[in-house]
Amino acid sequence: MKPSIPKGTRDFSPMEMAKRNYIFDTIKQVYQLYGFQQIETPAMETLQTLMGKYGEEGDKLLFKVLNSGDFISKVSDEELQDRNALHLAAKLCEKGLRYDLTVPFARYVVMHRDELQLPFKRYQMQPVWRADRPQKGRYREFWQFDGDIVGSDSLLNEVELMQIVDTVFTRFGVRVQIKINNRKILTGIAEVIGAADKIVDITVAIDKLDKIGLDNVNQELREDGLSEEQIAKLQPIITLEGTNEQKLDTIADVLKDSEIGLKGVDEIRSILSALCPVDCGTSAVLHNEIQLDLTLARGLNYYTGAIFEVKALDVQIGSITGGGRYDNLTGIFGMPGISGVGISFGVDRIFDVLNALDCYPKDAVVGTQLLFINFGEKETAYCLPAVAKARQAGIRTEIYPDSAKMKKQMSYANAKQIPFVAMAGENEMAEGKLNLKNMITGEQQLVTIEELIASIK
Amino acid sequence: MKPSIPKGTRDFSPMEMAKRNYIFDTIKQVYQLYGFQQIETPAMETLQTLMGKYGEEGDKLLFKVLNSGDFISKVSDEELQDRNALHLAAKLCEKGLRYDLTVPFARYVVMHRDELQLPFKRYQMQPVWRADRPQKGRYREFWQFDGDIVGSDSLLNEVELMQIVDTVFTRFGVRVQIKINNRKILTGIAEVIGAADKIVDITVAIDKLDKIGLDNVNQELREDGLSEEQIAKLQPIITLEGTNEQKLDTIADVLKDSEIGLKGVDEIRSILSALCPVDCGTSAVLHNEIQLDLTLARGLNYYTGAIFEVKALDVQIGSITGGGRYDNLTGIFGMPGISGVGISFGVDRIFDVLNALDCYPKDAVVGTQLLFINFGEKETAYCLPAVAKARQAGIRTEIYPDSAKMKKQMSYANAKQIPFVAMAGENEMAEGKLNLKNMITGEQQLVTIEELIASIK
Repeated sequence: MKPSIPKGTRDFSPMEMAKRNYIFDTIKQVYQLYGFQQIETPAMETLQTLMGKYGEEGDKLLFKVLNSGDFISKVSDEELQDRNALHLAAKLCEKGLRYDLTVPFARYVVMHRDELQLPFKRYQMQPVWRADRPQKGRYREFWQFDGDIVGSDSLLNEVELMQIVDTVFTRFGVRVQIKINNRKILTGIAEVIGAADKIVDITVAIDKLDKIGLDNVNQELREDGLSEEQIAKLQPIITLEGTNEQKLDTIADVLKDSEIGLKGVDEIRSILSALCPVDCGTSAVLHNEIQLDLTLARGLNYYTGAIFEVKALDVQIGSITGGGRYDNLTGIFGMPGISGVGISFGVDRIFDVLNALDCYPKDAVVGTQLLFINFGEKETAYCLPAVAKARQAGIRTEIYPDSAKMKKQMSYANAKQIPFVAMAGENEMAEGKLNLKNMITGEQQLVTIEELIASIK
Repeated sequence: MKPSIPKGTRDFSPMEMAKRNYIFDTIKQVYQLYGFQQIETPAMETLQTLMGKYGEEGDKLLFKVLNSGDFISKVSDEELQDRNALHLAAKLCEKGLRYDLTVPFARYVVMHRDELQLPFKRYQMQPVWRADRPQKGRYREFWQFDGDIVGSDSLLNEVELMQIVDTVFTRFGVRVQIKINNRKILTGIAEVIGAADKIVDITVAIDKLDKIGLDNVNQELREDGLSEEQIAKLQPIITLEGTNEQKLDTIADVLKDSEIGLKGVDEIRSILSALCPVDCGTSAVLHNEIQLDLTLARGLNYYTGAIFEVKALDVQIGSITGGGRYDNLTGIFGMPGISGVGISFGVDRIFDVLNALDCYPKDAVVGTQLLFINFGEKETAYCLPAVAKARQAGIRTEIYPDSAKMKKQMSYANAKQIPFVAMAGENEMAEGKLNLKNMITGEQQLVTIEELIASIK
C-alpha cells in the first residue's frame, strides 16, 4: 500500500514549520503587545452553528462529519430512495469542520457572554477547512490568524488594528500598502447617484481606470445601465487623485447631501488623523503608506464601517491581510447589538511572500546548534557530561546516537544545517578537551567545554 | 437559536490558553534543546491510512468525513437497503480525522523518505479526535505531544528521552516517578515459565501485591490457570524488591535460560548506567527517580524494547507521559526495518496536574501589563504617544477604547488582571506627566513616560 494524504492538504516538514512558527510567533507577539488574548475553539462545530452562515455555496463547501454508531438507523427508507445529497447529509451528519474563525468566534462570544469583560480583544490562529477545488495557493486545509475587538464602537480600535498591521509587516521586513475605505462612503455614493444596486459594478469599473482609461470606464458604466446623469455625477470620484486629505475633500463635496456618506468620510478622517497626528512626534507614524481607495469593496454584505486590505509592494500576489467593522456579528446567535472590528492575516500567502523575498531571520530557521560526533562507547561516555553542560547553557545540542562512519555523521550535520560540530578522540580525551569545528568557516579549535559554550554563545 | 458545541469538545478561554501555551512551550523548548524538529500533518487522513491500525474498536472510534458533492450517487440501491453502517461508512467517506500522531508520523516518514536524514528526531503537537464516550478527563478532541527518534537502534536515544522527561517535569516543578521496563524481559519471563499467553494476567496480578498480599496474588495466578510449578518460578519476581541494581540481578538469575530475557536486562542496565554514571559529576543525573517496574506492560503488541511511564507523585491521576521502543513502525506502509523509540506527553492530564499544584510561573499567565484610562478625546490624544512608547519598549499595553465611566475601566483592568494603570487628567497634562497606579499595592506616582517604562520593566 502506497500511502497518500487527502488532496488539498499538506504535511509541514521541519524547515517549513520553522518558517511558519516565525510568522505565527511574530503576529502573536504584536497582538499581545496590544493586549489581545488568545482563544481556541473546537475543530468540529455543530452543523446548526455552521449552516447558512456562508451562503449557499459555503454550505456545499463545508466538510461534514458522519455521525458515530449506527448512523443509518435515523434515515427512513423514503429518504434513502430519494437520494437527495443535501437532505441526506443533514440526516447523516450533525457536525462539520470549522470553515472560518469568525462564526466560531461569534458563537464563543454568545456562549461565554457572562464571563467576558467587554471590550473583548481576542486573537485566534487555527486551521480551517473548505471542500474547495484545490489549486496553486488554494488548499482544503489552511490557516487563519484573526484578531477582533468586540463590544466597542470607538474608532481607536480601527487605529490600533492599522498599527498592528504596520508593526507586523515592518517586523517581517516586507513593504506593504494598506488600503482603507468605508462601507458608508460606498452607500453614500450609491445614494447620491440613485443606484444603490449598482455599487459593486461601479467600484469594479473605477478600479480599471489605470488599465483602460477614463472613456472606457465610462463606457463600462453605461453598459452596467447607468444613465449619463449618473455617470456625470461619478466623474470626480472616478478621477479621484491626490493625497488622502484631497480625496476626502472631493468625496465630501460629492456626498454633501448624504448623511451616511458624510459619516463615512468623518470616520476615515478620524482614523487617518490619529495615525499621523501633526504633533505626535515619530511614535505613532506608520512605517507603511495607508491609502484611501474607493475601489476597495470587500465583503459588502458583512461590513458596515471601515474596511481595509493589505498588499505586498514587492511580490505579485493578492491581498495578504484584510478586515473591517461589522455591526452585528453575534445577532445570528441571538445576541444583537455587539459591534466589532477585526483583521485576518492570510498566513499561507504571507508565507509565500516571505519565501519570495527570503526575509527570514537566521535565528528563526536554525535548529540544532551543536552536534557531538559519536566515535564509540568510550568516547561517548567522555562526551555525555559535555553534552549535558552545553544543554544546561541553553545550546540546542545533539550527540549522534550511533558510532556510524564519520562521513555519515558529517552529512547528518550538513543536512540539518548544524553550524558547530564537536569531536573527542584519544588526543582530546587525554587533554580533557574537545575539538570544535565551525561548519561554515571550516575552522577548528581545541577547547574546554566552557570555552566551547562561550564560543557558541 | 441557542448555540452549543459538540459534546466532548471544548472552547479554550484566554487564561486556559495562557496555561496551555506555557505547557506546550516548555515541552517544545526541551525537545529543541535535544535537537528534535517539529512537523505537522493534516487533520484529515485517508481512511486507507487510518483503518485497521487501532484494532476493531479503534475503527469504530474514528470520526469519518462525508465525501463532498453528490456522495450518494456512488452507493447502490442494494447497499442502501442493506443498512450496514460499517459498510456504508466506507462507501460514503474516504477521509477521517487523525486518531493519534503515531500513524500519521509513520505515513509521513514513508512519504518523505527521500528527503529525510536518518536518524530523524521529530516532535509533533496537534489535536486528535476519537468518538469515545465523553467523561470527566476524557474528551473527543484532545492534544498529544509526541517525540520520536526513528532510524537508530542506539540505546542513547532511550537515555535522552528519559532526560527529556526529567527536564520537562523539573521545569514544571512537578515531582514525578519514571517507571521503566522492557518488553524483552516480559517475553523472557513468559518463556521461562512456559506461559507466553499469560503475560498480561501475570503483570496484572503482580501489580496487586501491595494491595492484596502475596497469598492472594498467588491465588489469582492459580485462577488465571498457572500451575504450582509456574507460580513457584515466579516467586522471586513477584516479591522483587530493592534497588534497580538488585532487582536486575534477581531477574537476570530467573531469566538465565532466556536469551531474549537477558537481552532486555542488558538494555535496562545500559540505559540506567548512562543516566547515572559513577563519574559523571552532577550533570547527567536525573532529578526524578527512575524505577524498574516489572508490572509496567503498556501496549504489549506494539513495543519491542524499553517501555516507560511517568506518574505525578503529588497528584492522584493516571500516567501523564509514556512511550517505548518499537521495531517496525513504518512496516504497515511498506517500509520495513525502521526502528524507533518515542514518548508522548499527555498534555490534558499535565494541565490538570499543574492546576492542582498551581505551579504556573506568574510571567506565563500575565497578559496586558499596562492600561491607559480613557478620559476623552483630548486626554487620549495626549496619551497615544506614551502608549506607543510603552509598546516600543516591549510593554504589553492597552488604552481603553471608549471614554467610559472610571469604574467600568477599572473593573476591566481588574478582570484582565492588569498590574499597572496609567491616567492623565488636567494636572498630569499640564506637567507633561502620567499618574501610574500599581493595581496590587494601590500605590500611585506622578511620572514621565520614561520613568513609567523603567518602573514597569
